[in-house]
Amino acid sequence: MIGAVSDSPPLPPLAVSLGDPAGVGPELLAAVWVSRVPRRVPCFFAVGGARLLREAARQRGLDVPIREIAHPQEATACFDRALPVLAEFDVAYAPGKPCHQGAELALASLTQATRLAIAGAASGVVTGPIAKSLLAQVGFAHPGQTEFVAEACGVAAEDAVMMLAGPSLRTVPITVHIALGRVPQAISVELILRRARIAAAALTRDFGIAAPRLAVAALNPHAGEDGRMGEEEIAIIAPAIAQLRAEGIAATGPHAADALFAPRARGSYDLALCMYHDQALIPLKTLDFDAGVNVTLGLPIIRTSPDHGTAFGIAGQGLADSGATIAALRMAGECAARRATAHEFTA
Amino acid sequence: MIGAVSDSPPLPPLAVSLGDPAGVGPELLAAVWVSRVPRRVPCFFAVGGARLLREAARQRGLDVPIREIAHPQEATACFDRALPVLAEFDVAYAPGKPCHQGAELALASLTQATRLAIAGAASGVVTGPIAKSLLAQVGFAHPGQTEFVAEACGVAAEDAVMMLAGPSLRTVPITVHIALGRVPQAISVELILRRARIAAAALTRDFGIAAPRLAVAALNPHAGEDGRMGEEEIAIIAPAIAQLRAEGIAATGPHAADALFAPRARGSYDLALCMYHDQALIPLKTLDFDAGVNVTLGLPIIRTSPDHGTAFGIAGQGLADSGATIAALRMAGECAARRATAHEFTA
Repeated sequence: MIGAVSDSPPLPPLAVSLGDPAGVGPELLAAVWVSRVPRRVPCFFAVGGARLLREAARQRGLDVPIREIAHPQEATACFDRALPVLAEFDVAYAPGKPCHQGAELALASLTQATRLAIAGAASGVVTGPIAKSLLAQVGFAHPGQTEFVAEACGVAAEDAVMMLAGPSLRTVPITVHIALGRVPQAISVELILRRARIAAAALTRDFGIAAPRLAVAALNPHAGEDGRMGEEEIAIIAPAIAQLRAEGIAATGPHAADALFAPRARGSYDLALCMYHDQALIPLKTLDFDAGVNVTLGLPIIRTSPDHGTAFGIAGQGLADSGATIAALRMAGECAARRATAHEFTA
Repeated sequence: MIGAVSDSPPLPPLAVSLGDPAGVGPELLAAVWVSRVPRRVPCFFAVGGARLLREAARQRGLDVPIREIAHPQEATACFDRALPVLAEFDVAYAPGKPCHQGAELALASLTQATRLAIAGAASGVVTGPIAKSLLAQVGFAHPGQTEFVAEACGVAAEDAVMMLAGPSLRTVPITVHIALGRVPQAISVELILRRARIAAAALTRDFGIAAPRLAVAALNPHAGEDGRMGEEEIAIIAPAIAQLRAEGIAATGPHAADALFAPRARGSYDLALCMYHDQALIPLKTLDFDAGVNVTLGLPIIRTSPDHGTAFGIAGQGLADSGATIAALRMAGECAARRATAHEFTA
């Protein structure tokens, strides 16, 4: 049946939101387009910013023809020869100088890119890096893009699960943007179950892993040493793991977090479920700093993002690494292809 | 003056405690001795366990002549041809089967090895892995070997600073073996200052770094985002850094912990000061699992240890990696040589 897949019409292109135009987002899109062939980047289009992207490419010393398109489907035909840009909003390029107008553009681009993915005109959305504090000034009321995209999809924010994925590791933080001191009260059997079930289902549907192996990290040092250094492993984490196993999910742990990311340990699981932000992000960035992808699991659409910020301090200087953006595009393309294939088989 | 150093009499050998005889300690000492020439392992002797080591070597398939010695200084002459063992206590080799008698041996070996280093008969002590719960049953009342060695040296436990060192990273956890939920209350300006001052002085004295650069990690995600996700950066960590800088110590931060251990960031400091156990241990073990050394800073003697446990589950099977023991011996030897040289210059 592989033949049937390759005979299918091509997938719609991926929609890419620009992120803050004063950050590294625009120049990275230009750099990614230039390396589309050797790096096997799937077809994508930028949502808005034709003038912006032309200037960002020029300042990075790249020869990037920009093709303005009126509909996503035009991207497929021209992607070989030009960077397709949906002819919408635009601003002047002013790297390192974030402003109100730029934040408005970032929000409009994100909104439109998400809409196109929901409508099926794009096979997924890859979101460029934004500055949350600036977006808040133009009416963005969400803690981050993940929650924004979830709401646009009609999914509760608690059911949109952030996964960080690099070439050598995938992690999901059970709690995310809260003070470390609040983590012990925030974790619960229910929260672990909810996130773990969504993650396991998404690893099967979008990543093609038939029976995902979930390694659940402990909260306390040495996994609490039988309660001598914290009770959460006994009271919360171990019961959650037992319940997951009873449901047929291959969960193990609680594992002492310091040994969980060592080279030999990494081969024993498909995903590490972590109790807090830095527990999930430290190993990922230590190993895969320039290739980390932030994926939102549990949505009806595919959504990925390079796992870095706007980097205003180096924007426009040609220093930003395009590895994470390439990885985010490729991962979105692979997930979209997998969903399309599954759909074909079940249709 | 380099010539003067090489003309000096050789340093005393390093004293190595056996650790729990049912763990991987004994077989690793045998393996290390076999690779002493290619791996440039400095001269050492084991404190006790001649029969134990002979059998551990045999079971690992290694040809290791054991030479019983009556005084540390005899080790230097025979180390080329045999593994020197101070003729003291002994037990039968029973890998994977910890027992009361073995715990007694482990404690006696640790006690004697530490004493020899304090007396100057050994140029430092390298401690093998113990099982704390077993040692507690034979009268060991300390949280770990670090505190035991500190007390033997007459140093307050708070002034013995645990540093983890691998080929690509050094970290010091400000708090160590406490539940994660207790960390926010446990950190203070005073504690950070105390540990940072000891660490900076030790990096100069024992590691030859004239002006050590200390990167101080944040406690909360994104370094607290200006207080939106925790106050500790503003109330505790930043003031501590300001004070360190006022004292002439090159401290920076608070740094968001997830980015602090990325490849490019690691080159910007000599030591990362971390707020809790796993923050310091996750990156170290992720990067340098088989070569991590636990060093105690702030003592009058040199003390290192391989950064792994007894591994009862694989003891006697020839599977344990000797990399961390070799690294611990080499680091102890280098620190001892540096102190001896400094002493010569100031004498």
